[in-house]
Amino acid sequence: MYLYSQQLINEIAPGEPDPAAANALQEGLGGQFGEMRTMMQYLFQSMNFRGDASAQPYRDLLQGVGTEEISHVELIGTTISRLLDGAPGYQGKKSDPVDEPGAKGATPLSIAKDTGNIHHFLVGAQGALPVDSAGNPWSGSYVYNSGNLVLDLLYNLMLESTGRLQKCRIYQMTDNPTARSTIAYLIVRDQAHENAFAKALESLGIDWGKTLPIPKTNAEQFPEVKKLVDLGLQSVQYTFDVDGASQAAKLYRGASPSNDGTELSTAVMPDGVPVTISPERKEEFAPGLDPELLALIQATAEVEIETINKTDTTAS
Amino acid sequence: MYLYSQQLINEIAPGEPDPAAANALQEGLGGQFGEMRTMMQYLFQSMNFRGDASAQPYRDLLQGVGTEEISHVELIGTTISRLLDGAPGYQGKKSDPVDEPGAKGATPLSIAKDTGNIHHFLVGAQGALPVDSAGNPWSGSYVYNSGNLVLDLLYNLMLESTGRLQKCRIYQMTDNPTARSTIAYLIVRDQAHENAFAKALESLGIDWGKTLPIPKTNAEQFPEVKKLVDLGLQSVQYTFDVDGASQAAKLYRGASPSNDGTELSTAVMPDGVPVTISPERKEEFAPGLDPELLALIQATAEVEIETINKTDTTAS
Amino acid sequence: MYLYSQQLINEIAPGEPDPAAANALQEGLGGQFGEMRTMMQYLFQSMNFRGDASAQPYRDLLQGVGTEEISHVELIGTTISRLLDGAPGYQGKKSDPVDEPGAKGATPLSIAKDTGNIHHFLVGAQGALPVDSAGNPWSGSYVYNSGNLVLDLLYNLMLESTGRLQKCRIYQMTDNPTARSTIAYLIVRDQAHENAFAKALESLGIDWGKTLPIPKTNAEQFPEVKKLVDLGLQSVQYTFDVDGASQAAKLYRGASPSNDGTELSTAVMPDGVPVTISPERKEEFAPGLDPELLALIQATAEVEIETINKTDTTAS
Amino acid sequence: MYLYSQQLINEIAPGEPDPAAANALQEGLGGQFGEMRTMMQYLFQSMNFRGDASAQPYRDLLQGVGTEEISHVELIGTTISRLLDGAPGYQGKKSDPVDEPGAKGATPLSIAKDTGNIHHFLVGAQGALPVDSAGNPWSGSYVYNSGNLVLDLLYNLMLESTGRLQKCRIYQMTDNPTARSTIAYLIVRDQAHENAFAKALESLGIDWGKTLPIPKTNAEQFPEVKKLVDLGLQSVQYTFDVDGASQAAKLYRGASPSNDGTELSTAVMPDGVPVTISPERKEEFAPGLDPELLALIQATAEVEIETINKTDTTAS
Amino acid sequence: MYLYSQQLINEIAPGEPDPAAANALQEGLGGQFGEMRTMMQYLFQSMNFRGDASAQPYRDLLQGVGTEEISHVELIGTTISRLLDGAPGYQGKKSDPVDEPGAKGATPLSIAKDTGNIHHFLVGAQGALPVDSAGNPWSGSYVYNSGNLVLDLLYNLMLESTGRLQKCRIYQMTDNPTARSTIAYLIVRDQAHENAFAKALESLGIDWGKTLPIPKTNAEQFPEVKKLVDLGLQSVQYTFDVDGASQAAKLYRGASPSNDGTELSTAVMPDGVPVTISPERKEEFAPGLDPELLALIQATAEVEIETINKTDTTAS
Amino acid sequence: MYLYSQQLINEIAPGEPDPAAANALQEGLGGQFGEMRTMMQYLFQSMNFRGDASAQPYRDLLQGVGTEEISHVELIGTTISRLLDGAPGYQGKKSDPVDEPGAKGATPLSIAKDTGNIHHFLVGAQGALPVDSAGNPWSGSYVYNSGNLVLDLLYNLMLESTGRLQKCRIYQMTDNPTARSTIAYLIVRDQAHENAFAKALESLGIDWGKTLPIPKTNAEQFPEVKKLVDLGLQSVQYTFDVDGASQAAKLYRGASPSNDGTELSTAVMPDGVPVTISPERKEEFAPGLDPELLALIQATAEVEIETINKTDTTAS
Repeated sequence: MYLYSQQLINEIAPGEPDPAAANALQEGLGGQFGEMRTMMQYLFQSMNFRGDASAQPYRDLLQGVGTEEISHVELIGTTISRLLDGAPGYQGKKSDPVDEPGAKGATPLSIAKDTGNIHHFLVGAQGALPVDSAGNPWSGSYVYNSGNLVLDLLYNLMLESTGRLQKCRIYQMTDNPTARSTIAYLIVRDQAHENAFAKALESLGIDWGKTLPIPKTNAEQFPEVKKLVDLGLQSVQYTFDVDGASQAAKLYRGASPSNDGTELSTAVMPDGVPVTISPERKEEFAPGLDPELLALIQATAEVEIETINKTDTTAS
Repeated sequence: MYLYSQQLINEIAPGEPDPAAANALQEGLGGQFGEMRTMMQYLFQSMNFRGDASAQPYRDLLQGVGTEEISHVELIGTTISRLLDGAPGYQGKKSDPVDEPGAKGATPLSIAKDTGNIHHFLVGAQGALPVDSAGNPWSGSYVYNSGNLVLDLLYNLMLESTGRLQKCRIYQMTDNPTARSTIAYLIVRDQAHENAFAKALESLGIDWGKTLPIPKTNAEQFPEVKKLVDLGLQSVQYTFDVDGASQAAKLYRGASPSNDGTELSTAVMPDGVPVTISPERKEEFAPGLDPELLALIQATAEVEIETINKTDTTAS
Repeated sequence: MYLYSQQLINEIAPGEPDPAAANALQEGLGGQFGEMRTMMQYLFQSMNFRGDASAQPYRDLLQGVGTEEISHVELIGTTISRLLDGAPGYQGKKSDPVDEPGAKGATPLSIAKDTGNIHHFLVGAQGALPVDSAGNPWSGSYVYNSGNLVLDLLYNLMLESTGRLQKCRIYQMTDNPTARSTIAYLIVRDQAHENAFAKALESLGIDWGKTLPIPKTNAEQFPEVKKLVDLGLQSVQYTFDVDGASQAAKLYRGASPSNDGTELSTAVMPDGVPVTISPERKEEFAPGLDPELLALIQATAEVEIETINKTDTTAS
Repeated sequence: MYLYSQQLINEIAPGEPDPAAANALQEGLGGQFGEMRTMMQYLFQSMNFRGDASAQPYRDLLQGVGTEEISHVELIGTTISRLLDGAPGYQGKKSDPVDEPGAKGATPLSIAKDTGNIHHFLVGAQGALPVDSAGNPWSGSYVYNSGNLVLDLLYNLMLESTGRLQKCRIYQMTDNPTARSTIAYLIVRDQAHENAFAKALESLGIDWGKTLPIPKTNAEQFPEVKKLVDLGLQSVQYTFDVDGASQAAKLYRGASPSNDGTELSTAVMPDGVPVTISPERKEEFAPGLDPELLALIQATAEVEIETINKTDTTAS
Repeated sequence: MYLYSQQLINEIAPGEPDPAAANALQEGLGGQFGEMRTMMQYLFQSMNFRGDASAQPYRDLLQGVGTEEISHVELIGTTISRLLDGAPGYQGKKSDPVDEPGAKGATPLSIAKDTGNIHHFLVGAQGALPVDSAGNPWSGSYVYNSGNLVLDLLYNLMLESTGRLQKCRIYQMTDNPTARSTIAYLIVRDQAHENAFAKALESLGIDWGKTLPIPKTNAEQFPEVKKLVDLGLQSVQYTFDVDGASQAAKLYRGASPSNDGTELSTAVMPDGVPVTISPERKEEFAPGLDPELLALIQATAEVEIETINKTDTTAS
Repeated sequence: MYLYSQQLINEIAPGEPDPAAANALQEGLGGQFGEMRTMMQYLFQSMNFRGDASAQPYRDLLQGVGTEEISHVELIGTTISRLLDGAPGYQGKKSDPVDEPGAKGATPLSIAKDTGNIHHFLVGAQGALPVDSAGNPWSGSYVYNSGNLVLDLLYNLMLESTGRLQKCRIYQMTDNPTARSTIAYLIVRDQAHENAFAKALESLGIDWGKTLPIPKTNAEQFPEVKKLVDLGLQSVQYTFDVDGASQAAKLYRGASPSNDGTELSTAVMPDGVPVTISPERKEEFAPGLDPELLALIQATAEVEIETINKTDTTAS
């Protein structure tokens, strides 16, 4: 059973609207090696997990990483949404959001025709989509769950490394600070997960030598990544476990298989930053343009605020 | 940010292996109107939500239902896994699991060729798959998120009703108690979500008259459903909100739009039942068949159990 | 612009419910070489057609065949629907429809788990689906429209021949009279279309020799086909043209390229048989089970019947 | 059975070639909420319709709207074709079609590499494709036909509203008069269909209050739309019924559920404008470049024109 | 550049028609981890390979294994074709092929409706299809080619191991000797390729310990596999290199990483067995049923045999 | 069984990096009418071929053309790879490859966001992908193999002609010499294959008149094509048959059906040009950036070069 805290797992830096960067980030959300895939793959591997009691730590490891990936979906999805928000008014210098629908025949959404994915403005309302950077919808056929523990772990290691490889390439495509704050964070967390699966495979007999991490990012070269690596974020695993029952820590300790001199450690969850709500975009009819409806919502909300004080206690 | 409790959201009744029922349930997991779809649709609608402060209850409602759907994915996925487990040995009367690979050329998996989806035994290891009951992989193109609040809610109402319609049909396809315990629970929870979106649309001006719920299941006819309806489970909404910050309760109160005479109410989360791990299946090479590897895992685990007592405190 | 007559293009023979035959026929509806594809391919070729005045007959030919294909979609779709209708009660000897939902936990839809496509009972309500006989959804990628007249005609000839080949195979899979009445009709009409495209290619210089028709069905062997061939239905082309403006007849005359000794001729449209409405199926919640709703529909209908007498004249 | 009149359902305004606008319009043709989808969805709902005699008006309503959608496919497909035609020679100021293939190594199609969908020039010959604006082929999985009348109508209402929402966004992407004449027309007709399904749901007990239409376009702001709304086109339903047997008018009368003060009314069909044929494009080898072939076609056509006068009477 | 020898890479044992086994084998041909995928993945990795001269052995290794996979596609495709051939007449005891189309309304293909994939008889003519065992068409999205050497090799190792895992499961589904002769051969060759990629990764620093092979098949248990393992076929690599230029042997020598005590060695190619042509199937119209056409082919062939003696020398 | 020679089937002319041209060429590789499709279609038609001894030449023809198509996949894939290589540094005037990853936050891959397919830089490492020019992955559903000889040959003729049509359009999109050298070669070879299938159909009774080739390219207009046509490359068929057993020559002789005055002839294989390896691209982490790993490879290679001299003789 899953619970939710109204916190983003990492802070998203402010920046200019940037639909091209938003589209590149879609690979990290809905791509074959993106966060929707890691999330679904680990949740299926957890649900279908087989083994006796001694295998519990492996299951808990998969479950913990899988739970983190849901928060990564939320983080990168929200980042894409912010990069798209206000983009129709963007002129290359500053953000000038356009909220009026095309009165008198104006074309406030004309930018959409030349952008990375026209669906960001036509099917969605300047928000993230469950597709990759080439517009392919996410597919259930991506999920790998052979049921063989060694193969599942080996695939997961390769999956995290490929996700990290792709994010290193995205990093080199844009210097938009909003995009980079999330990309850098995910590069480091992918390495933490790479370490987790590598370590689990070590317990099954593989010695990685100096192969890890893949790719070797040379963090010194990517300033936003280096900052997080210096904090050791690549060597911490979270359980997101409200019961304190996870045995994943058994598999994530000792020297990092990435040979960076750090020791692996486990925590329940990181601090987050509060989730906020995006502004309305009338040119997208989301939800705006209807004064009557707005008045109705407002009225309902006010009545509800009054009522809630009395009835709130009945809840739960 | 999401957290996890090692609890299933509802108990799964014991029963015989039943791959045909398992395959019918796949529609409720990976089908176009199944739990993976509701989960993803509401998470995207939450991430991309737009509005001013008065719109917060709508966002929190979407977020809360979306969080519940992750647990529904876990519940129905685990149910499918149990229905498949041991099926190769099933002879129509009792469960006789086959764990030995095909020594001397035996064919312990021969049942797979005539089953609903051969992939349950060939690609997965007697576990759930992210596909529908006809074998189509789940697709990101299912997710609807127009950004227009009325349309998104209207779609969600139709989505929950269709999910419920399909589950009522699945109910009529099998009387396997394992399958039915989960199907009955989801029929009732789908109605709760139908109520939630219907109520939100009432706040925007629609009067549903006697249209709801869709379909009218006549719970008296479906015994497993009736039991849960008598408990009022169709009129409770969960927030799964660890912060107590959700405003969703503002939209879910008063008389049920389903006109069943109940009052709507909100709670944080239901009690659950502990998650368990499925047994090994050697005929699937999951993970078994390798004494050396098992010895290695065992040894590692023992060393870790010793060590964990000392290092456990360093976590979090 | 398209018009509609409440007539099926050919009569569907009565017969037993037969979900296995229904599923085989899905190839002829939603398969890569089925009626949805021919319909869409010719409509796109018509819309995008290029040429000077002398090319008009080719366009009109495509448009006329394309219009017929919409009626073929209706014919085969309705046939599938009839073959599925009542199937849940089918016991091999006679049709015994089950209309009661699963009261007291009964399983009236249990047949669905072992049928050709479970979606016929789970996603649809014993009705046709836009998929092929293996369950793959119809895809826009099937449509061929190169813009080169010779290539488009050559593809169309091959398309009709392949459709006919597949229908000859379906004929050999079932002797259900409902299925066969439609399959036999479409085998003969596919040959008429094969003739049409072959003749158009003759006008562009190709001599088919004795190659046509493909395949050579030896109509004497297929009794239901022979009956229609004896009527000459394979050598008539319809325009479905309400304006009498079609020039397609210019391309469809003289000796049949199938070398069967007939002369080609053109007509506007065949006689049809009245369309009827299928009965309710309560076990599918389609639409039944709700006395209140039925009463409401009835009341509305009665009021409307009164009113329509007065307002009907305002229409058109 | 379907008939055809060589008339477009609405006039397409002349304008400059505009491949970017053409690509945006593809969403309205082959997108998940475009005209191919509405057409197919309503045709399937008609074929599979269930009910007793009192349900006939609902079936006829679906059939009538479905028939109109075929003409919408023709309208928007033809519009896309016109927007693409001559685009290779377009320089931003005037249209300068290029009809010569790349003699001496010239690159008359170089524009294609940077356009919305390169397939418009590479797979098609400057014509419409059965894909959406992101290039995804149309899929049969889009079609919704649950068999439950309330759900089907509710989905249809949402579908028309979403189609209209997307077209309002497309309107804001381009001021090309060719594109806008069709987009404005379809916005208004989508509203008519929205009204139709809303009214049918009113007969089943739902009161829409002031929710409709969705989105509220404020027609005054979109000049091309306002012109058609002032003509009342959003409140007329067509039956396209050559037999006069449709009972759909029973469900489409009284005050508009869109609360615009109009009365709903029914007509058989609108006036249309003659269909024309597009010019050849030799750079696309469609069909040009072959003097011999052209001579052959010409000769054949002339012979046929002579012959047709004598044999024409034998037809029909 | 590729060359062809009219030899199958391994002998296919004779056996009864068996469409259920044929369908299970489709996973090994067109499945996500089947031979079409390995073939395409290695060919793309070869074409796109990057590196300086020292990397040549890695490229040659990929090229050599990729070339072998084309022959595996031919082997398993031919095996499926043989398992399907004559199946319509199969009655459970002996093979009784049916070659007459459905004269007098007979249904010689009725078996197709209840078989693993109806397309084997309806779309193909009792032949292999490029789909998996659940009927999903092979997709280009399966191909993995990150460009990073370590990741590509790691994926390939996992890919071969998963292919082998699936084939071990297929082995346990059928004891049909035709199916097993090919499955057993591919299990052993997949291990050879697993060894190849494992060894290449050893050269990059990984020590596999006792992890390989995955899964541990315990060859003693699978008699058909044991026979080939005893011949050492799992420890030989072929180059299929007509120039003798391949450097792949540099990477494939020394002790097997599978720890079975064998030494790895390299050869150009195995002996094969002659390819044969399958008999006609008239009930599939493949190609039969047309005496005129057959006479024509015969006549042409005879003329050609005469002529070929004179002109043959002009070739090459 | 297939063999490999380290030779490209035709020389690729040097030229500037050109990702837009590379993307156009993807249609010729992974498009519905590209080389992956012809290759797979003919290999399946060969494997599943049916007939008596007189049909052998048809099978051998399909096998021979199919084998050539594998080399075409290699040729066009390598061409795309070369057009992409170094593109990140391309400034419109000269090639300035960027090999350093984004040190200090630089964005060497920023070009990727505005290119034809961002996956060329994000998923691949400046290499070819198994997708078409609109980014759709290649699909097994493309393959046509009805089993009916006439239909298969007719489809193949249409397939080659459509491939040629599309390549003529690509020719007109770019004058990049690298792209054109391959496109011109494939235009001419497609014509050779068109001739092959046309001739085979002649043997079955069809007279093509002056219809072929389709389209009529007027080679004089396309200089790069004319050069190859003058060499007669469109009238030579290769067997790629190492055994000399192919009977395909029986079907490919006499006057060309393209009426260009040439005589058809058969050869085993053309001369090729040596395959080379592409340079590393560190900005893609392919494979670079890791001095340790490079040292390891180097060391291993050196040891191997020593060893190979002794052990090489054990191979084969």
